[in-house]
Amino acid sequence: MLTANWIFRFGDGTSDQASGTLQALGWKGQSLAEMSRLRLPVPPGFTISSDVCSWWGGPESSSTGALRREVEYALAALANTTGRTFGSPTNPLIVSLRPSAAHSVPGLMDGLLNIGLNASTVEGLAEQSGDAAFAYDCYRRFVQSYCDVVLGIDPQDLEDILEELRAEACVPDGIKPSADVGRQIIRAFLAFVEDELGEPFPDDPMEQLWGAVGAAYKSWNGRRAILHRQAHGLPSDAGMAVVVQTMVFGNRGKASSTGVLCTRDATTGEKTLVGEFLNDSQGNELVAGTRKASSIRVEALAQSGCPTGFNSSIRESSEPEDTADVAPALVEALQQIACQLERAFCGPQEFEFTVEAGTLWLLQSREVTGQGKAALKIVVDLVQEGLISEEEAVLRIDPAMLDQLLHSTIDPSAARDELARGLPASPGAACGLIVFSCEDAEVAKADGKKVILVRNDTTPEDVHGMHVAEGILTSRGGMTSHAAVVARGMGKPCVSGAWTLSIDAAEKSLVVGDRVFGEGDLITIDGTSGQILVGEVPLQRSDLSGDFGTLLGWADKYRRLEVRSNAEQASDAIVAREFGAEGIGLCRTEHMFFDSERIVTVREMILAEDDEGRKEAIAKLLEMQRGDFIKLFTTMRGSPVTIRLLDPPLHEFLPKGERESAEVATAMGVSPEKLIKLAASLDEFNPMLGHRGCRLLVSYPGIAEMQARAIFEAAIEAGRLTGEPVLTEIMVPLVSLKRELVLVRSIIDATANDVMKETGETLYYSIGTMVELPRAALRAGEIAKSAEFFSFGTNDLTQTTFGISRDDAAAFLSTYQAKGLMDADPFVTLDQEGVGELMKIAVERGRATRPELKLGICGEHAGDPASIAFCEAIGLDYVSCSPFRVPTARLAAAQAVLRARKTS
Amino acid sequence: MLTANWIFRFGDGTSDQASGTLQALGWKGQSLAEMSRLRLPVPPGFTISSDVCSWWGGPESSSTGALRREVEYALAALANTTGRTFGSPTNPLIVSLRPSAAHSVPGLMDGLLNIGLNASTVEGLAEQSGDAAFAYDCYRRFVQSYCDVVLGIDPQDLEDILEELRAEACVPDGIKPSADVGRQIIRAFLAFVEDELGEPFPDDPMEQLWGAVGAAYKSWNGRRAILHRQAHGLPSDAGMAVVVQTMVFGNRGKASSTGVLCTRDATTGEKTLVGEFLNDSQGNELVAGTRKASSIRVEALAQSGCPTGFNSSIRESSEPEDTADVAPALVEALQQIACQLERAFCGPQEFEFTVEAGTLWLLQSREVTGQGKAALKIVVDLVQEGLISEEEAVLRIDPAMLDQLLHSTIDPSAARDELARGLPASPGAACGLIVFSCEDAEVAKADGKKVILVRNDTTPEDVHGMHVAEGILTSRGGMTSHAAVVARGMGKPCVSGAWTLSIDAAEKSLVVGDRVFGEGDLITIDGTSGQILVGEVPLQRSDLSGDFGTLLGWADKYRRLEVRSNAEQASDAIVAREFGAEGIGLCRTEHMFFDSERIVTVREMILAEDDEGRKEAIAKLLEMQRGDFIKLFTTMRGSPVTIRLLDPPLHEFLPKGERESAEVATAMGVSPEKLIKLAASLDEFNPMLGHRGCRLLVSYPGIAEMQARAIFEAAIEAGRLTGEPVLTEIMVPLVSLKRELVLVRSIIDATANDVMKETGETLYYSIGTMVELPRAALRAGEIAKSAEFFSFGTNDLTQTTFGISRDDAAAFLSTYQAKGLMDADPFVTLDQEGVGELMKIAVERGRATRPELKLGICGEHAGDPASIAFCEAIGLDYVSCSPFRVPTARLAAAQAVLRARKTS
Repeated sequence: MLTANWIFRFGDGTSDQASGTLQALGWKGQSLAEMSRLRLPVPPGFTISSDVCSWWGGPESSSTGALRREVEYALAALANTTGRTFGSPTNPLIVSLRPSAAHSVPGLMDGLLNIGLNASTVEGLAEQSGDAAFAYDCYRRFVQSYCDVVLGIDPQDLEDILEELRAEACVPDGIKPSADVGRQIIRAFLAFVEDELGEPFPDDPMEQLWGAVGAAYKSWNGRRAILHRQAHGLPSDAGMAVVVQTMVFGNRGKASSTGVLCTRDATTGEKTLVGEFLNDSQGNELVAGTRKASSIRVEALAQSGCPTGFNSSIRESSEPEDTADVAPALVEALQQIACQLERAFCGPQEFEFTVEAGTLWLLQSREVTGQGKAALKIVVDLVQEGLISEEEAVLRIDPAMLDQLLHSTIDPSAARDELARGLPASPGAACGLIVFSCEDAEVAKADGKKVILVRNDTTPEDVHGMHVAEGILTSRGGMTSHAAVVARGMGKPCVSGAWTLSIDAAEKSLVVGDRVFGEGDLITIDGTSGQILVGEVPLQRSDLSGDFGTLLGWADKYRRLEVRSNAEQASDAIVAREFGAEGIGLCRTEHMFFDSERIVTVREMILAEDDEGRKEAIAKLLEMQRGDFIKLFTTMRGSPVTIRLLDPPLHEFLPKGERESAEVATAMGVSPEKLIKLAASLDEFNPMLGHRGCRLLVSYPGIAEMQARAIFEAAIEAGRLTGEPVLTEIMVPLVSLKRELVLVRSIIDATANDVMKETGETLYYSIGTMVELPRAALRAGEIAKSAEFFSFGTNDLTQTTFGISRDDAAAFLSTYQAKGLMDADPFVTLDQEGVGELMKIAVERGRATRPELKLGICGEHAGDPASIAFCEAIGLDYVSCSPFRVPTARLAAAQAVLRARKTS
Repeated sequence: MLTANWIFRFGDGTSDQASGTLQALGWKGQSLAEMSRLRLPVPPGFTISSDVCSWWGGPESSSTGALRREVEYALAALANTTGRTFGSPTNPLIVSLRPSAAHSVPGLMDGLLNIGLNASTVEGLAEQSGDAAFAYDCYRRFVQSYCDVVLGIDPQDLEDILEELRAEACVPDGIKPSADVGRQIIRAFLAFVEDELGEPFPDDPMEQLWGAVGAAYKSWNGRRAILHRQAHGLPSDAGMAVVVQTMVFGNRGKASSTGVLCTRDATTGEKTLVGEFLNDSQGNELVAGTRKASSIRVEALAQSGCPTGFNSSIRESSEPEDTADVAPALVEALQQIACQLERAFCGPQEFEFTVEAGTLWLLQSREVTGQGKAALKIVVDLVQEGLISEEEAVLRIDPAMLDQLLHSTIDPSAARDELARGLPASPGAACGLIVFSCEDAEVAKADGKKVILVRNDTTPEDVHGMHVAEGILTSRGGMTSHAAVVARGMGKPCVSGAWTLSIDAAEKSLVVGDRVFGEGDLITIDGTSGQILVGEVPLQRSDLSGDFGTLLGWADKYRRLEVRSNAEQASDAIVAREFGAEGIGLCRTEHMFFDSERIVTVREMILAEDDEGRKEAIAKLLEMQRGDFIKLFTTMRGSPVTIRLLDPPLHEFLPKGERESAEVATAMGVSPEKLIKLAASLDEFNPMLGHRGCRLLVSYPGIAEMQARAIFEAAIEAGRLTGEPVLTEIMVPLVSLKRELVLVRSIIDATANDVMKETGETLYYSIGTMVELPRAALRAGEIAKSAEFFSFGTNDLTQTTFGISRDDAAAFLSTYQAKGLMDADPFVTLDQEGVGELMKIAVERGRATRPELKLGICGEHAGDPASIAFCEAIGLDYVSCSPFRVPTARLAAAQAVLRARKTS
């Protein structure tokens, strides 16, 4: 044959080979080509490659020339195969046309069927089939769809004509009109079209075909498709293929049907054929649901000859007599095909079929993954059935999906009264009584009530209230606002940034539009979808089945990255260990300061007028911190624990506003003026870039010394309790200069020496730094001289590299994503080009100075699969994420290794 | 001679060569070596190299071994030269010891004189000199200084003994005691020392010498010297040399004296020998001023045989008969020496001399530069005298010094009642009545009064108040706070961060300690020193003499960097042009929005409920901006003007606090609630990292379009007015993603096309971006595809690279500098290692994409000489600084080229 540049044929047990198949043919074209090679019954046809999409300039310009010649040649070849000729009045070839993109894109044109019918070919089809009524029914369907999709005529206009004529001719619902009535309908349609457009409906089959091609491309560049591609980061120049295929007719009477079948039950993962079919139907009638379809359900049969053998049964049917007619032979054939497809494609498939006068044809087939537990069951079963390897199973599960399994979800069958939507800030669902303050949350909790904490935003002081709440709802803040980050860390559901909510905490009211809620009203939030629902909606508890453990066990075999967890409380550490964390990668000591009793001592320290007073407060904090660390170390016995020294600016510990300040001052026995003045003097324009992190430790070396002492004394005590040495890693935050680290390090080392002398015991510790500022990354070579490890704080590194405050970003990041300026929220998925380059620089320079430098990441990105793949690629040693992200991270880390192996 | 590792001899018309002379010998050692080679009369001696300082471990450990042998060898050589022997009772060699660092370091030990005297050598000296009273006077002086400097005895103790014995012996003031009394004094001293220390005063000359060496090194490591070295960024391992030199005695009667002379008048720069001397004196008696010295003043005489000939005269003298004795011969000799020194060292020198019994000796000489106008006169004169080249003249002036010449200064002779000190935020002095608000400033100004605006801090809204004030004083904010930056831009004096001030704007009071000031009280501020003075202090107006222009003319010959100015107002642009700016490098359009009338329109735009309302407000702003740009373009005719589109977050334009909001709302006719709610919704946690820059332009494309239109319409109008095409460069701020720039660029280009179509004229414009975020620097390669120029916004780039808010940095940066963590404030002098590396990356990647990319800098650093040198080194095309920094930048840019030439 001629060199085919753009046309790839299939059918008759063979298909043309295309390079970059999925991209060139789209998923429909590819599945047809593959099924054809498997000698499955595929109506023959050809795919116009997606390359054409890029230069297509409308039907006029491109229906001539090389492409036209190729299409004509392909149609001629099709005539050879089928014995029918496109446009032939005696033995016409009728075709369908379907857009075929590499991935599913909403907004594309539906398939256009019955192309090639006109006043003469319809007679040929009538003769071929021996059923003139059927032929005219096809012609009528074609004209209707073509008018809608290609010519842009309001479908209701033709529908009205049809209804009128059917009524005139007394044709009942569900019955095809006779050929005569069919002719009458067509005449009326064509007259209407000519009247409407000023030119006749295209009679020439080739013209019909090119019109359909053009409409397909037009839909690719439609608004909805473009928005979808932008939202999903699909390249805009990818293009879309078009499949042209010999028509098979499911509407040729009782022995004909269309159907869809899945080889496993996607909702449970069970090995059961599940599907439905509709007799005497064509196109999307099955989906449209205007007539009730018959269900197919075939349980798996272990002893079947086929390794994936099924035991058949057809349940439920609206028309039992029809079922009886078709079932036995069809089900037998479908079973065979299901078995063949699963083996060929190494997993469950959903396929569409048409039966034309008793002959079964396949129109497309695609992979089915299932969701949540079902997906896990499917891949674990596939491994056990020998269809796929463990590696393949690990690769098939979307790590982000594991999240769903760890949290409660809203019962899918429950009715939902949606009040508003916010951002899905922390997964899982929760319901409870509305409270507007942490104090109210604690009181209600003490009364045994479940509450949802509703706030404009949260601050570190609210952590105790968040702890007792079932879930958190805020009207401000993005995916990485304080509420979101802390809630994810706690594994509690959170919906943040629900802008349409008006929350007045003083008045204890929540207003959305004209609906008003107060304290004690019941609401339900879904942190997985961002939905806020009125009232108590039934939830489903999570339940980690054996498949979960099996799959993560396989993942652990392949992953190289160590997975740690961020945790402060011993309770979080226990959860983290259960989820498989191999250590604590980030313990934020300040979280231990916000407890309502302790914060008083912290404030005493800040307010101290002299060193004496400050020392007293610091001594009290030492006691408290030591106790916390002992609990953490004994919980994590044998595993490393990374403790970050004090990070937030001091004003975060002071009350906000005059009223609260006055209350606190009175409680502390100091003058309100003094407290307000101090708070004002500590207040900052840009706290994120302020007096925090190691800058505090430089200003107040006593804090560093106290924290180091608490860590070391706790390590010795925990070592005595458990009989195992405690491995501590002390982390200095916000370093930008080597000298900062040298100074703080000298305080820590001196304290370690003191404690060792005092106790006579040996301490096992290392000192490292966060790399969370661009300058630290650039100067990593010299900083590594004083650091045994680096932990990338990618939250702050993203903020400073982009110059974007994550607390304020919600106001414009959504616009950015809507306008296609950013593919992903950089606080969720690491910006590899910018932030990632700084990380690479730091890795290279740090390791050049100190080859054994330990490298980790403890920002939010440590729980994001794409970001974890990047961490694997640049050779980090560990990732540290919130406890509930640990399973995700384990799986993503394994996938990163396996994918890298595939591409190398 | 033996290989001398550490000892470098001088005297007798020669000197040992040391590599890295200044560093090895210190400035005193170096000047002695050089003068010796010039065959000037230098008492012979040797310098112990600064290398010794690094390993010196105290007199005990190091007075033995190799160094001791070298010193002994050097003393022996000295004996050869002088014919006297160290420690000899008959013909003793007496020496002095002086620390000699490479640069002047306060806190170092004073010179120690008369070393080598003891009970027996004193008799030898008496015999040598024929004056036993003189010999004992020297011995007494030696014991007194040695006790103070080396042995740590309270000097007052010996002074008391001395006074007592002089009184007993009836020796009048100013008269040497007789030898007998001298002996008695020594005995009493030595007895006291032995009693005090429990061991006798060291008698052995070598022990005395090593004791002195040890004391010198100890002073190098004293607190004051270390702090000074840290403060001036001098390397801590530099070390200090020590000079040991044959004593010459200025205290041998009337024919002896000590003196100091400068070859030019450092206060005026005139070519006049100026100095003083004191008969029969030693050491620092001249400086101490206990006796009145004689002045020397010798006017230059053009016709003198020496090209730098002088005409001598000695004016003023307390003891005219002494002067008459010494003057003629001494002045003749001094003139010769001054002439020789100026020619040898190519510039004015200040030198110390001693006359011993009629013989003149030189003890040190150093370069003199003068300050301000004097320094300029000196270098310009030197070029005209043929002593130095123009290049050398350009290199000799400290560019930072030019600042002084452009501003008023406080009369140095005026009495100062210092109230407090703040940061020297913007140079120059101003006095006026205290006002606490911009409104009060405007009212007072309208009444013809001069005011100083006193605030806790300033915001963009205060700009109009700053405009009418003589100077600005704030209690908060650092060197780069809003007040500081804007004041520098306006060329107005500003003292910022005066933390000890308590300012209550509502009460209109300023309290410092127990001193209270109110509105209308007079104060004076000195933005050059940071001083705040009570009352009206007389000022000296600046006056740019011809030398200023001459020197800058030379600078312009050598510099490669273009120098532009940051300016918004036409008045600033005029100043900038006068100072030599070659264009506007940064016009911050938002400065045009803060005018009290315009801000109402800006607020209307922000408050607009619909597009219609917003469009109306935007249209009004278009009018205003167009008018401003026309003025700016006509002022800068022929020179490029870079205009930055709107940068600050919108909340900066809204009133702060409930009271002010309510007032503004009432004035605007909207509800206060609405305004307060809007302000709250726009409020940001970290405005620096918030919804600003191009992010605003993405959210509100109408603003970008309006600004582009105002620029283009103004360019056409200004072109018509001046007859010259206007070259505009439109700059998009805060870009971190290429797509941001592409989007904003498309708006600007579309607007340009519209305006060209509407007017039929051609626009000459280019579009570029600020590089002020780390990500922009890293992605410069792709960003340059859409940018014709980059302007480094190093203020923000420093903030984000370090993660430091310049508004909040004052609280810890001072601690950082005090603790030696940072050598310089990175907001004043560019951090070359961190921020600088990002700039280099951006330059490389930007030019790789677009070789003709124009590169500039418009941050505060553009006026800092060290930073300008870096800009030269990395190949930027221009720097753009505030108008008053333009001369500094021109000079610094020239120096950068000349220095680079020298080292290449």
